[in-house]
Amino acid sequence: MKKRFVFGLLGMTALAGVVFAVEGQWQALPEKAPEPADNPTTEAKVALGKMLYFDTRFSSTGTVSCFSCHNVMEGGDDHRPTSIGVHGQVGGRNAPTVWNSAFLSAQFWDGRAPSLEEQAKGPPTNPIEMGMANLDATIARIQAIPGYKPYFTAAFGQGDTVTMDNAAKAIAAYERTLITPDSAYDRYVKGDKKAMTEQQVRGMDTFAKTGCTACHSGPTFNGSANLPMGQGFFMKFPIFPGSVYETQYKLTEDLGRHTVTQQDADKHLWRVPTLRNLTYTAPYFHNGAVQSLDEAIRVMAKTQLNKELTKNEVQDIVAFLGALDGPFPQQTMPRLPPTPGDLLTAN
Amino acid sequence: MKKRFVFGLLGMTALAGVVFAVEGQWQALPEKAPEPADNPTTEAKVALGKMLYFDTRFSSTGTVSCFSCHNVMEGGDDHRPTSIGVHGQVGGRNAPTVWNSAFLSAQFWDGRAPSLEEQAKGPPTNPIEMGMANLDATIARIQAIPGYKPYFTAAFGQGDTVTMDNAAKAIAAYERTLITPDSAYDRYVKGDKKAMTEQQVRGMDTFAKTGCTACHSGPTFNGSANLPMGQGFFMKFPIFPGSVYETQYKLTEDLGRHTVTQQDADKHLWRVPTLRNLTYTAPYFHNGAVQSLDEAIRVMAKTQLNKELTKNEVQDIVAFLGALDGPFPQQTMPRLPPTPGDLLTAN
Repeated sequence: MKKRFVFGLLGMTALAGVVFAVEGQWQALPEKAPEPADNPTTEAKVALGKMLYFDTRFSSTGTVSCFSCHNVMEGGDDHRPTSIGVHGQVGGRNAPTVWNSAFLSAQFWDGRAPSLEEQAKGPPTNPIEMGMANLDATIARIQAIPGYKPYFTAAFGQGDTVTMDNAAKAIAAYERTLITPDSAYDRYVKGDKKAMTEQQVRGMDTFAKTGCTACHSGPTFNGSANLPMGQGFFMKFPIFPGSVYETQYKLTEDLGRHTVTQQDADKHLWRVPTLRNLTYTAPYFHNGAVQSLDEAIRVMAKTQLNKELTKNEVQDIVAFLGALDGPFPQQTMPRLPPTPGDLLTAN
Repeated sequence: MKKRFVFGLLGMTALAGVVFAVEGQWQALPEKAPEPADNPTTEAKVALGKMLYFDTRFSSTGTVSCFSCHNVMEGGDDHRPTSIGVHGQVGGRNAPTVWNSAFLSAQFWDGRAPSLEEQAKGPPTNPIEMGMANLDATIARIQAIPGYKPYFTAAFGQGDTVTMDNAAKAIAAYERTLITPDSAYDRYVKGDKKAMTEQQVRGMDTFAKTGCTACHSGPTFNGSANLPMGQGFFMKFPIFPGSVYETQYKLTEDLGRHTVTQQDADKHLWRVPTLRNLTYTAPYFHNGAVQSLDEAIRVMAKTQLNKELTKNEVQDIVAFLGALDGPFPQQTMPRLPPTPGDLLTAN
């Protein structure tokens, strides 16, 4: 069993007041994402992974790809409260952004996947998302497209390398290139003091003083900078129950990590999400119930820190969070190999 | 009323035997697509059009874009017999390729749109495709995304330029860049006699001798090289009724152009489709009922020319048609402006 890192309220306050107020707390995003020993990032894998990422053909209807819900042309999500998969089915949670997911130590809102590789194997067989019967049927779709073979060979060598494990590795390798390490905030932290506006600097201070950094710390602002991959950083939400927001936004209907572990202690526990590129990922929270960033900040302050911020404080924090946006790397479109005509006629 | 160009069987045979057997019949695709006087192709329009082409946010659910059914990362279609739109609804016809559609003198299988601009306004309000109530609601979605405004200004000038007409113009301008003028066939026709294989040259001869060029002539092989934009080149399918293929592939269930004009003479009339990039656009025909290119060739020969080709003839024509594939221009991905969080919460 993996250890859970959950700080109690006391520990949080202490962290906010002491540890995170020091100068060194502000960390820039590394220029390169970490990669696991058994899946080093190579050009050939990234090229193949990008093809697979955009390929709808391993969803049951041939209409849903990774890109469908994780739009790398925008915020890495899908603009919707919760996603829509095959046959128009609506899912239960807000699509998390793929941008900088390479830096997160656990994947999915409930942290149930310890790596990007494992995450990539989830949606294909989710009946609401891509709707394939199983992973064998999923990879069979790719195997049926002869044009993929040379790309798997280039990435993984000769032989029977068109496997689900390798497909997932390639997708993960591509996702490790989807990072935004050159935001105004990153440039500011690296020494360019003109990179952020006065309001953004003020918001950065308010963000720390309010206590947001208790959870949203580290270069990705998800608190997991020093956690090994696979070990999620979880937090209860809401910590302070009974606010108007709780009922207004139905914050407690989903039991969060409890749905994975079935343990009482995991009720309403969620992986702390990154705060990068929030301008592009509305609506917010696990259920996508909150539409604007300023409202999301008010909800967080109230439910997690029992604070009510002034209008100016909220605006300053919104400005600061804007400093965490992009820039997004320019990407070329992949070319996908042709499909045999019988591949998608059965669905 | 637009004149219809429909050649009777006698005319066809004459054309096949005389006009199209001359040397000059083989035409390369122009390096640039024609553009209407009121919508010259500009860089700013193409950039905006590419953004809109990939934007799912002006479909009712926020899940369907032009790209969904016209995949420019592959054959410009969607690999399926017929397309799937919002709420998992399945459409009635096979998505035609967007590649080289700029050269076609009428759009849609039944030719009901006289231009790419008019075509672009069809799917948004089709209840099965993008499902918007009307075009006002469609452009309102774009107007609600402030980040689009500068791109419309760059393409169409100051003022209230975020209009549906301009959005359609931009999409059309982008589509006019989606052309494949440097195929093996084009290089062959331009004088590089090594560009095609011996089998492809043999197939080209068989293609002409069989009579395929009666309809599939001109640089896009859709017979409309000299037709003004807006004037479709239509043909009856099947011309020779009663073949086994007719029932096997349900070729006559859809009345084709009749569904637009309600005229008896238009029953089973279809716009002659381009033959470029067929390797990438299986399955075939208006209903996507035929899975392989060799079978599509057999069906065409039998239903349109009452001929039964030998296995070798079919293989040679398949090889020749392969010479009409690509190469596809490398494209960068567009960056889409962020969405307000309330844009897609109602659907």
